[in-house]
Amino acid sequence: MAPEAITTDASSDVTITGKIYTRVRLATKSDLSHIYKLFYQIHEYHNYTHLYKATESSLANLLFKENPLPLFYGPSVLLLEVSPTPFDEPKTTTNEGFKPVRKTFDLKFPVVEGQVEEFRSKYDDKSDVYIAGYAFFYANYSCFYDKPGFYFESLYFRESYRKLGMGSLLFGTVASIAANNGFVSVEGIVAVWNKKSYDFYVNMGVEIFDEFRYGKLHGENLQKYAHNKDKNGEGSC
Amino acid sequence: MAPEAITTDASSDVTITGKIYTRVRLATKSDLSHIYKLFYQIHEYHNYTHLYKATESSLANLLFKENPLPLFYGPSVLLLEVSPTPFDEPKTTTNEGFKPVRKTFDLKFPVVEGQVEEFRSKYDDKSDVYIAGYAFFYANYSCFYDKPGFYFESLYFRESYRKLGMGSLLFGTVASIAANNGFVSVEGIVAVWNKKSYDFYVNMGVEIFDEFRYGKLHGENLQKYAHNKDKNGEGSC
Repeated sequence: MAPEAITTDASSDVTITGKIYTRVRLATKSDLSHIYKLFYQIHEYHNYTHLYKATESSLANLLFKENPLPLFYGPSVLLLEVSPTPFDEPKTTTNEGFKPVRKTFDLKFPVVEGQVEEFRSKYDDKSDVYIAGYAFFYANYSCFYDKPGFYFESLYFRESYRKLGMGSLLFGTVASIAANNGFVSVEGIVAVWNKKSYDFYVNMGVEIFDEFRYGKLHGENLQKYAHNKDKNGEGSC
Repeated sequence: MAPEAITTDASSDVTITGKIYTRVRLATKSDLSHIYKLFYQIHEYHNYTHLYKATESSLANLLFKENPLPLFYGPSVLLLEVSPTPFDEPKTTTNEGFKPVRKTFDLKFPVVEGQVEEFRSKYDDKSDVYIAGYAFFYANYSCFYDKPGFYFESLYFRESYRKLGMGSLLFGTVASIAANNGFVSVEGIVAVWNKKSYDFYVNMGVEIFDEFRYGKLHGENLQKYAHNKDKNGEGSC
């Protein structure tokens, strides 16, 4: 289902020129409504909105369980926030266990934040902060490694914030978290038709393995296996 | 490093004819030495033994943490055990939280267990049980699903136990666990050169997506990102 209709009252647009200040931080439950909208937008980008089944409640359950997995082991969302004014020095450690990363970008062209109310950050008292994009990842495992790695599930930026180099900051932050916390790799899949995305990951140092194909058992094909439920122990697979 | 030299004293071989009894169960810490040997063998299969860095201790840390993740969320190993004699009815629930699955196979040719001592199961009092293979998987997440799925990392059988249909039992058991516990998919990657494996997964109902490629940031390319360690908060990605 689609998020509430998005207002585009241009009178409230914020135009950022010169410098844009960014902060990367771990998402918290207070970001749910923004994550819900960003996940909807990535469905739009792929023409998949008919498949968008999430609700804020199901996302809360997926991303912010009462008894969360250890830091970075469960599903983890990093948000990139932007502001026309500088961010304060982050506290040494936040409640979320990850110290936010800040970076200032010099803008070659003005950036227009056209959905001020919809994407205003609720994280702290600074009121001119907007959510620009996210990275989504979680711990993965392999018989070929003696330690966990990360599976990098998706990276997304709202249209206003593309082509600014922010993707490198966000992916680079995930890679830094991996390298600095003993995770041995950052893996994922990339669409071959998305040349910009493909080249981006290669430039970030990702090695592409042409000899593998991604496969998925899902939908009806998966549910066929549910019939074993009552026969568990009888072994009639 | 290679496991201890494997004795091949044929006098202790066990030849199984007629029927072979199998049991699929969740691995426990008592299976560590067997998992270690099976992981070594899958490295041999891929000519990767020079990359095998695991020790029984590192595997214990990877697979059997003191404070484990919830059932099936962390790295999970299902073992397929074989025996020339029937398995007892499994207890309704085991300590591990998964009720073992049994299946009997009619053999068209004799099966020789040539490493009786190396792969004798230590799981229960039944002494004629041998570890034949494993499946390795863990929970994964996607912005395109409102619930977790499984990532199916690897499936491996010792040479004596191939071509018997046991792969279907093991993969089917993982699929059943997914379908019966609200996990929405079983995903993974498959090598295009491994036609037998590729066809196996397609026959099991797996949809292959030709438009994706698997990529990995690892080794030196990943360690380049570690320099941000001391600059966390300064944002110099």
